Amino acid sequence: MELPRACGIVALLTDFGLDDPFVGVMKGVIKQKNLRADVIDFCHGVPAHAVAVGAFYLAAAIERFPPGTVHVAVVDPGVGTPRRALAACAAGCFWLAPDNGLLEPILRRDDAEVRELDMAKLRLEPASRTFHGRDVFAPVAGLLSGGRFGFRAVGDRCEAPVRLAGDPLAGDAAPHVIAVDRFGNLITNVTAARIGHERWRGIKVGARSISLHGTYADVPAGEALALINSYDLLEIAIHQGRATDVLRIPVGTPLEALK
Amino acid sequence: MELPRACGIVALLTDFGLDDPFVGVMKGVIKQKNLRADVIDFCHGVPAHAVAVGAFYLAAAIERFPPGTVHVAVVDPGVGTPRRALAACAAGCFWLAPDNGLLEPILRRDDAEVRELDMAKLRLEPASRTFHGRDVFAPVAGLLSGGRFGFRAVGDRCEAPVRLAGDPLAGDAAPHVIAVDRFGNLITNVTAARIGHERWRGIKVGARSISLHGTYADVPAGEALALINSYDLLEIAIHQGRATDVLRIPVGTPLEALK
Amino acid sequence: MELPRACGIVALLTDFGLDDPFVGVMKGVIKQKNLRADVIDFCHGVPAHAVAVGAFYLAAAIERFPPGTVHVAVVDPGVGTPRRALAACAAGCFWLAPDNGLLEPILRRDDAEVRELDMAKLRLEPASRTFHGRDVFAPVAGLLSGGRFGFRAVGDRCEAPVRLAGDPLAGDAAPHVIAVDRFGNLITNVTAARIGHERWRGIKVGARSISLHGTYADVPAGEALALINSYDLLEIAIHQGRATDVLRIPVGTPLEALK
Repeated sequence: MELPRACGIVALLTDFGLDDPFVGVMKGVIKQKNLRADVIDFCHGVPAHAVAVGAFYLAAAIERFPPGTVHVAVVDPGVGTPRRALAACAAGCFWLAPDNGLLEPILRRDDAEVRELDMAKLRLEPASRTFHGRDVFAPVAGLLSGGRFGFRAVGDRCEAPVRLAGDPLAGDAAPHVIAVDRFGNLITNVTAARIGHERWRGIKVGARSISLHGTYADVPAGEALALINSYDLLEIAIHQGRATDVLRIPVGTPLEALK
Repeated sequence: MELPRACGIVALLTDFGLDDPFVGVMKGVIKQKNLRADVIDFCHGVPAHAVAVGAFYLAAAIERFPPGTVHVAVVDPGVGTPRRALAACAAGCFWLAPDNGLLEPILRRDDAEVRELDMAKLRLEPASRTFHGRDVFAPVAGLLSGGRFGFRAVGDRCEAPVRLAGDPLAGDAAPHVIAVDRFGNLITNVTAARIGHERWRGIKVGARSISLHGTYADVPAGEALALINSYDLLEIAIHQGRATDVLRIPVGTPLEALK
Repeated sequence: MELPRACGIVALLTDFGLDDPFVGVMKGVIKQKNLRADVIDFCHGVPAHAVAVGAFYLAAAIERFPPGTVHVAVVDPGVGTPRRALAACAAGCFWLAPDNGLLEPILRRDDAEVRELDMAKLRLEPASRTFHGRDVFAPVAGLLSGGRFGFRAVGDRCEAPVRLAGDPLAGDAAPHVIAVDRFGNLITNVTAARIGHERWRGIKVGARSISLHGTYADVPAGEALALINSYDLLEIAIHQGRATDVLRIPVGTPLEALK
């Protein structure tokens, strides 16, 4: 595989939230390694330790950033244990993350080359056993984004990275609600491709049937609809309302096709 | 009107919050169109679908950014409908937003030139009907910020943009509380100019009179005061306290002049 | 002292949160003064008016940013009063803040040079008495970050800056819980140095003893532990749990050494 050239962007995805200085400290460390790095907050709203949600958010970054972007994803409940730290190259970008399934949408790709960060070679001795975002991923991201070393210099190939257990977006996962967004919309794991292929006309959840439409305003205000959202996933929504509050369908609720 | 030259800054105002990856994806798309864009989070805390609050926040950006900044405002309950998408030039900057009243503080200006984004001409075919922040506004902002095309190339003049229904800052709006800030201060729609012109000495809210002062510490801790805040609007506050918790005056509460 | 050269970065620490446009307006004003400033959100999650928490967060930025970074810290309950505004140089960076103890971790250093912003000399006439983040600190940060004037030009030396009353990290402060982080971990004011010097094997809180370990996963899931966290402070945590919810130890709770 021909590798992309680092473009200077470092995009951050974490479960750190923004109330503590954790994200800010990572930014400073990245800039210490590459003063010209263009550090972008991708998202820090992954629920604490929710690796599967982090993987889902990470998928939304694929093909949405310039070639050579260094993506750093830190949702790391195993920090300080011997779990490995990974660097992958896929879809024209670089992806750094702990080896815990967070990289699932990258690992699932045919074009992914995955390596294990070699701490000794990189001369990284983490100062803490609780914050590898700061002590491992930030410095490597800084150096990689500035072209200080190439992707293949981070360490040897990692042949068996950890895959996401129970990945909701795996082909054989049963249809269910996987997340609720800011607007109270219910996001499911049913892909647009599956909708098209299996000719779903909507979804059934318990006794209720909800029809597929093109966008929110295709139904009257207050009415429920299903649509293909910007993640290319089936979403259950209420026009001008919050589906999560009105329909009371919790995350995990199973769904059936309406055909 | 002589147009400003793009300075490279893209400032984002949305109601997306920061818990989902929506804002992060917009940033990536902007950078895909202009790798050198300087993307700034202006604010993503507009309450969901609250166009009037978005307009109020947008007003706070006027004359506070360098000439040639591309402001992108997305509070877009009508996404996916035939509502137009606008680009305006005013106050030395560019302003992109859906045509739903969000641009009110720009439209109200004598110097505003308003155009409608011409999707065909811009070769934009939105991939989604639910996320024009990503599929329309971000790419146009990227291209405009990089000088890839000029403002007048985005489309024809828009002669009758939608104005904000019930704009709380319209000259004839009745005095009332329009928002509560982080510190629990109650922001009203009474302008500093009106205070000066009509010689208000404070405000009356129900049976209570609250006197005008210069800053919080001009009254003892725990005491209520009115002041002209940094928006140049009358604000009701409690020194070292949270007016919203103590006074229990909800948004929308009518006010009277104390003269 | 030899002064660092401004590197172009401006890092922002405030108690403004991200729901209002206050932070965004500061960014715009900084860019008005220095179009090339690299403005970084360090953290805006300091609880409103919590100067001691702000000082604790500021300490986390020391030695974590490139030399010549301009740090701006605004937690400013006394805004609009005659309280002074300070600029300090220490640890290779510049630090701007109101004179209320927020700079404590800087003032405590031997290498700190502290100056008082001279509003007349800087030709700053704050437009508001409520938002010096916008009207004082942002413009000075912009100018300083761009090398438009040197650090010593901001004003005369300030010989007696306000120190933080009851600084929890002062050497003689009694051990107690000072904060709760995003993950529900309880952060104490007991430093790693003290733990080592006094040979603590853990902590006692009320009748409960909690042993010191290396990282979260050193105990079974659900079990309590103490560890040295990334702030180099003693932390009380639950492996895969939220200590604040499980242990119900509020901020301020006194602690004893387990030896």
